[in-house]
Amino acid sequence: MRVSRHGPHTMAHDADSLRKASLIRVLHALAAGQVSSEALTRAFLAAIERDRALNAWLHVDGEGALAAARASDARRASGAPLGRLDGVPLAIKDNIDVAGMPTTLGLPAGAEPPAARDAFIVARLRGAGAVLLGKTSLDEATLGTVGRNAHFGDVANPQLPGRASGGSSAGSAVAVAAGHAVAALGSDTLGSIRIPAAFCGVVGLKPTHGELSSGGLRPSLRRLDCPGVIARSAEDIAPLLQVMCGHDPDDPRSRRRRVALAAPDWNPSTLRVGVLADAASVGAAPAVIAAFDAALGRCAELLGRVSVSPFQLAALDIAATRRAALLMMEAELLAAHGPLLEAASPPLSAMLDFARRKSAADYARADLRLDAHVARVRRLFERFDALLLPVSPLPPPAVDAPEPPNLADFTALASLAGCPALALPLGDGIGLQLVGLPGSDLRLLELGALVAAVVEAEAVPD
Amino acid sequence: MRVSRHGPHTMAHDADSLRKASLIRVLHALAAGQVSSEALTRAFLAAIERDRALNAWLHVDGEGALAAARASDARRASGAPLGRLDGVPLAIKDNIDVAGMPTTLGLPAGAEPPAARDAFIVARLRGAGAVLLGKTSLDEATLGTVGRNAHFGDVANPQLPGRASGGSSAGSAVAVAAGHAVAALGSDTLGSIRIPAAFCGVVGLKPTHGELSSGGLRPSLRRLDCPGVIARSAEDIAPLLQVMCGHDPDDPRSRRRRVALAAPDWNPSTLRVGVLADAASVGAAPAVIAAFDAALGRCAELLGRVSVSPFQLAALDIAATRRAALLMMEAELLAAHGPLLEAASPPLSAMLDFARRKSAADYARADLRLDAHVARVRRLFERFDALLLPVSPLPPPAVDAPEPPNLADFTALASLAGCPALALPLGDGIGLQLVGLPGSDLRLLELGALVAAVVEAEAVPD
Repeated sequence: MRVSRHGPHTMAHDADSLRKASLIRVLHALAAGQVSSEALTRAFLAAIERDRALNAWLHVDGEGALAAARASDARRASGAPLGRLDGVPLAIKDNIDVAGMPTTLGLPAGAEPPAARDAFIVARLRGAGAVLLGKTSLDEATLGTVGRNAHFGDVANPQLPGRASGGSSAGSAVAVAAGHAVAALGSDTLGSIRIPAAFCGVVGLKPTHGELSSGGLRPSLRRLDCPGVIARSAEDIAPLLQVMCGHDPDDPRSRRRRVALAAPDWNPSTLRVGVLADAASVGAAPAVIAAFDAALGRCAELLGRVSVSPFQLAALDIAATRRAALLMMEAELLAAHGPLLEAASPPLSAMLDFARRKSAADYARADLRLDAHVARVRRLFERFDALLLPVSPLPPPAVDAPEPPNLADFTALASLAGCPALALPLGDGIGLQLVGLPGSDLRLLELGALVAAVVEAEAVPD
Repeated sequence: MRVSRHGPHTMAHDADSLRKASLIRVLHALAAGQVSSEALTRAFLAAIERDRALNAWLHVDGEGALAAARASDARRASGAPLGRLDGVPLAIKDNIDVAGMPTTLGLPAGAEPPAARDAFIVARLRGAGAVLLGKTSLDEATLGTVGRNAHFGDVANPQLPGRASGGSSAGSAVAVAAGHAVAALGSDTLGSIRIPAAFCGVVGLKPTHGELSSGGLRPSLRRLDCPGVIARSAEDIAPLLQVMCGHDPDDPRSRRRRVALAAPDWNPSTLRVGVLADAASVGAAPAVIAAFDAALGRCAELLGRVSVSPFQLAALDIAATRRAALLMMEAELLAAHGPLLEAASPPLSAMLDFARRKSAADYARADLRLDAHVARVRRLFERFDALLLPVSPLPPPAVDAPEPPNLADFTALASLAGCPALALPLGDGIGLQLVGLPGSDLRLLELGALVAAVVEAEAVPD
């Protein structure tokens, strides 16, 4: 369990003890004057410095963060905080623009100037008083699932030393797991939030596609790209989401909704839950199947109140569609970040060379393949309100093992259909994934909190 | 004026006089027993046969249509019509599947079998009792704006002999203009409904992208493709739209809305209308500018009640974005219809060869360019509820003139932003275009009917 329990009288000098507390607990401590944003920020900065060997951060703006924290404390002292998030220190994945900080995408920055302005969602958080600690590391150009980076060093897993931290939002997951920030922004194209969250034993949400603006998120594959949140509990995500959501006219894929994040029409007593029934035949390791089955067992009472039936993944041929998406992603990375990619490592260059040999018609063919797949996944969702499956078919591989090609096969399902998906930790780097209908993000978080309360009982010790 | 006026006692043998009546008038005649669907269908089939030189049709299913018409008459005789559209004869553009009929895309069909099932929107119409007369001609593979087809013959303009009929939905516009059907389905990627509608003196709606399913519409560029309607008046379109709309889980771009085609929040008394102010500097011919200005003059009283301000097109650099979209369209045509395109004419082959030399990254680069453009157009729409501009910068060119490259520059605006756009005829093949916010299709049709009543006063004689 990642949420530390504190009494109501935590003093300011206990800031370090709040480093691994939930967002909700931190908000309470800030509002009650039990801790200052500056003390909290100093505690996080000290931990980041201590844990440099984890390689979780590419850029830390200590001075800027402390100035923002002091400004927040002054607002609270004068009785005029910007809102309940005022003063909360956060981490930002380094493919999301923060004004004044470089955006590397995990590639040697070269002559790239710092970002001129905040990404849409970062501006929302800054406007709500959040303290932006800095930028977290990622797999080169987001093309990876294990947290490896040839330029800045591999990102280490603080929960499972010797095992991969997961990617591509490796640094964001590690920052949350190691207590370097209250929560972190990541991005998820085919699983990049959920995989590292599971590997590092924390919680990650890939929202409905278009629910959060991608304005200022450097593109990987806009058709699938979703900014999202990594935090210590499902309850922590909604307060951040509600500040970040809203229509962005500068993002063509931003959803325009009368009520952003409205709760959709579902009724817990009539919930239809689909449970992955063919995990083994689609490549899940025995340890993953055992952890998944044990989690379902612990959910039995909870799920006893809803309609549960099995679903199969094999018929969807996800692996082939994920490969088509990967080609599109490589082509879009080349188109969007050509100069930066000249510094790509040999393995990344080899992947991009594959895309370089492909034609415009090959791209269109892959895109047509994704369309056909979306239709198949949507038909699956006509039978269910939520799906339960593991986050990844395999536990975190050893840091020196080759990157398994199928780590994103189970996360691609939600990505390809634009669905929200929540990763909850089951321990040992294995994760439980809840996938909901598009637009059902808040309900999925509610359901996730219920499930987490049951399945996390024996999870990673703090 | 395209709507013939008939007394209330039109007899069945007057079916031929209903050939150019509005859909609303035909619905009344059918419901009142003034004409049978069979008589109407026979009148249309006879006109199609007489006008073979127009080259509007690629496939006519006389037998099937008459059987459907008789079945409709039997339902009406027994007092159980399927709805108010029961028995209405329609034309379908030949890139939309109709079960049992070939789908050529304007290319020599070769060994292509007839479509196994109806497109989503065709199934909706058939389910409502519509009589499907057959398939109408188009520019080869939808890549054209003038109604030219090297394989089946150019489609002639019945209103303006010697002038282009417009494309690519040439046959559908001609079928409506020449009285071969009550209305016709077309498709519009960059202007393919609106341009031929204007050139032939009829009305055409490109709906909001995703409002009508593209399931069974053969892809040109799915990001922009919209099936839509060509009819004799703006009032005729809504009854068809309301039968065809609705969510199609098989089409990844189909919009899922609680109330399909709901009227958006706009109030006629607070309507903000933008009027194209730099027509000349973006390539509009003097005749088009004169007709546009005259139409605005006739709208003065109508528009006097709303807020009108100018907007400029030059800053949007539409032509360059249209060219990027064209590359994507060519690549997607190659990916989706490779075997059919082996029979492409030399000019089409030359266009496709351009795309064949482009890489996957070139495709992604074009797609990124479209995104940037969408954001610009959306910002424009923040200031307006509707835009008024000509359909095309030029009047219909002579049939033997080279195809002007910029005919779709004014229609691309709405295509690229997913907006609904209505083309109203101003005479001489020149059209007035009304563009609305996404989802405002029904309101746009209402506004279009008001405008048409004023501007069509001196339009094409019947």
